[in-house]
Amino acid sequence: MTPATDFAAWSRAVQVDMETALAALLPPATVAPERLHAAMRYAVLGGGKRVRPMLVFAAGEAVEAPPTRLTAAACAVELIHVYSLTHDDLPCMDDDDLRRGKPTCHREYDEATALLVGDALQSLAFEALSQPGLHPNAGTQLEMVHLLACAAGSRGMAGGQAVDLASTGRSLDLAELEFMHIHKTGALILAAVLLGALCGEHLDTSLRERLEHYAKAIGLAFQVMDDVLDAEGHTATLGKTAGKDAAQGKATYLTLMSPREARAYAGELIDTALAAVAPLGERGRRLAEIARFVVERSF
Amino acid sequence: MTPATDFAAWSRAVQVDMETALAALLPPATVAPERLHAAMRYAVLGGGKRVRPMLVFAAGEAVEAPPTRLTAAACAVELIHVYSLTHDDLPCMDDDDLRRGKPTCHREYDEATALLVGDALQSLAFEALSQPGLHPNAGTQLEMVHLLACAAGSRGMAGGQAVDLASTGRSLDLAELEFMHIHKTGALILAAVLLGALCGEHLDTSLRERLEHYAKAIGLAFQVMDDVLDAEGHTATLGKTAGKDAAQGKATYLTLMSPREARAYAGELIDTALAAVAPLGERGRRLAEIARFVVERSF
Repeated sequence: MTPATDFAAWSRAVQVDMETALAALLPPATVAPERLHAAMRYAVLGGGKRVRPMLVFAAGEAVEAPPTRLTAAACAVELIHVYSLTHDDLPCMDDDDLRRGKPTCHREYDEATALLVGDALQSLAFEALSQPGLHPNAGTQLEMVHLLACAAGSRGMAGGQAVDLASTGRSLDLAELEFMHIHKTGALILAAVLLGALCGEHLDTSLRERLEHYAKAIGLAFQVMDDVLDAEGHTATLGKTAGKDAAQGKATYLTLMSPREARAYAGELIDTALAAVAPLGERGRRLAEIARFVVERSF
Repeated sequence: MTPATDFAAWSRAVQVDMETALAALLPPATVAPERLHAAMRYAVLGGGKRVRPMLVFAAGEAVEAPPTRLTAAACAVELIHVYSLTHDDLPCMDDDDLRRGKPTCHREYDEATALLVGDALQSLAFEALSQPGLHPNAGTQLEMVHLLACAAGSRGMAGGQAVDLASTGRSLDLAELEFMHIHKTGALILAAVLLGALCGEHLDTSLRERLEHYAKAIGLAFQVMDDVLDAEGHTATLGKTAGKDAAQGKATYLTLMSPREARAYAGELIDTALAAVAPLGERGRRLAEIARFVVERSF
C-alpha cells in the first residue's frame, strides 16, 4: 500500500489484508465448539465492502500510525459491524434472508447459532482491541476500548437500532431520521476514524475535531446513499434484499425527499467532509477518496 | 462491610451496593431510546443473587483492593451475566417465561428489545471496565478487559452456550458435561475472581494459581447444585421455572448420578476450593464463606 497507488487498488489491498487478519483472529472451525466457530467465520469472512476498516486505515495514514495497530483496530470495528448485521437480520428484527450475496447466518445455520455468533463477535472485538501491547501507551489503548464500547452501546449503535425499531411504520421528520442514523451507523463510523487516529503516537485536539466533523458528515452521506441505492438498486448488485426498507414501512430519506434531492444532499455532506480534511493535504488523501467513494458507489 | 460482619450481612451489603452502582451505571429510562433503557434497567435491577459480584469483592478483599475499583469490576461481570441470561431466555434459546421471579425481558417487552438489551449490556460491561483511571496501572486495567472479553466469548461463556444447545436431547458423559459447564458458567466465575484480585496493586503468580483452583472448583460445584435445585426445587423459590432442564431433554448431573451423589460431589469440590484458599487465612474468609454458601443455598 504505497501512497502512490490509486484508490481502487488501495481499497482492494485493505480488503485482502482484512480477510487475512480476520481469518487469523477468528478461532478455527476445528476448535470446539466447531459449529459456532464455523458460523462466526461464515458471517465475517468472504465478503463485505470493509468501509469501516478503510476508515481506520485512512485515518491511521493521516497520523502515520503503524499498520499492525491499525489492522487490530480495523478488525475490532469490523467485528462489531458484522455482529450488528447478524443480529439485525434475525427474524425478530429485519428477518432478512440475504446478506453480502449469501444466505444470512440464521438461514445458513439456525437462529440460536446466529444469536451466539453476534454475541461472540462482540466479545472478540473487545478481545482484539485489548490485546497486550497493541499500543505502547496502555492508557491510549484503554481509551480506544472505551470509545468502541460507547459507540456500540445503547447510546450508540444498539440505541440507533432501538430507534429504528420504534420508528417502523410511522413517519419521521428529518431531525428524527438523522437522530436514528447518527446512532445506528454514525457512531461506529466515527469510532472507526478516531480509532485509526488514536493508533498514532499522539492525537491533538484540533485534528481530532476535524476528524469528527469528517466522520459525522460521511456517516450521514453513507446512509443517504444507502437509502437511494436500496430504492433504486437490484438485489444482485447490493448483495442484500433491495427495496426492503420501503416494503417494511421504514422511514428513509426517500420518504422525505426525491432521489435527486437525496443525491444532492449527500453531495453537500461530502463537501463538508472534504473541507474538514483539506488542511491535511496529502496525509488526508485516503480520507478524501473514501468520502468521494461514498457518493459514487453503486453497491 | 467491616471484616467482622457475618456472611449473611456481608452478602446483603454487596447486593445493596450493587443495586446502587448498577442503577447509576445504567442509562436513565428518561434518556433516548427510552424503551431500550427501561428494558435494560428491568433486566438488571431488582433481583439476582449477585454471586459473581460477591466473588469480585471477596477476591478483592484478599488483596486489599479499593472498593471503588471492585464495584466497577463487579458491575462489568454482572452485566455480562445478565446479558447472557436475557439472550438465553429468548424463544430461539431456552424460551423461558420467568427469571428472578419476574417475566423474562422478552415477555415484559418484546423479542427485538430483549435482543438489543443483551447486546447493549455487553457493550456497557466493557464501557464500565475501560473507564479512564479505574486502575492506576493502565496495563493492568487492559489485562482486566482482555480477561473479561476472553471469558465472555466463543472460547468461554458463549462457547459453552453453543455446546449446551448442541447437547440438548442427547446424553453426555461426565467429561462432556463438565466441558460445557467449564465454559458456560465456569469461565465467568473464574473471571470474577481474577478481576477482583487484579483490582489490587499486584497479583503474584502463586496467589493467582490458588484463586484459579478455587474458582474452577466452585464453578463446577455451583452448577452441580443448580442441577440439584432445579430438579428438587419449586419455581417460586428459584425465581425461574423449575424442572425445565430435564423437561427440555438437557444433560444435567442428575442424568449421571443420584441427587445424593451429586450433593456429595459438590461437597468434594467445595473442599478443594477451601483447601486452595486456606493459606490466605483471614484474608480468604469471604472466599471460603462463598464456597460454603454454594453448597448450602436453597435457591
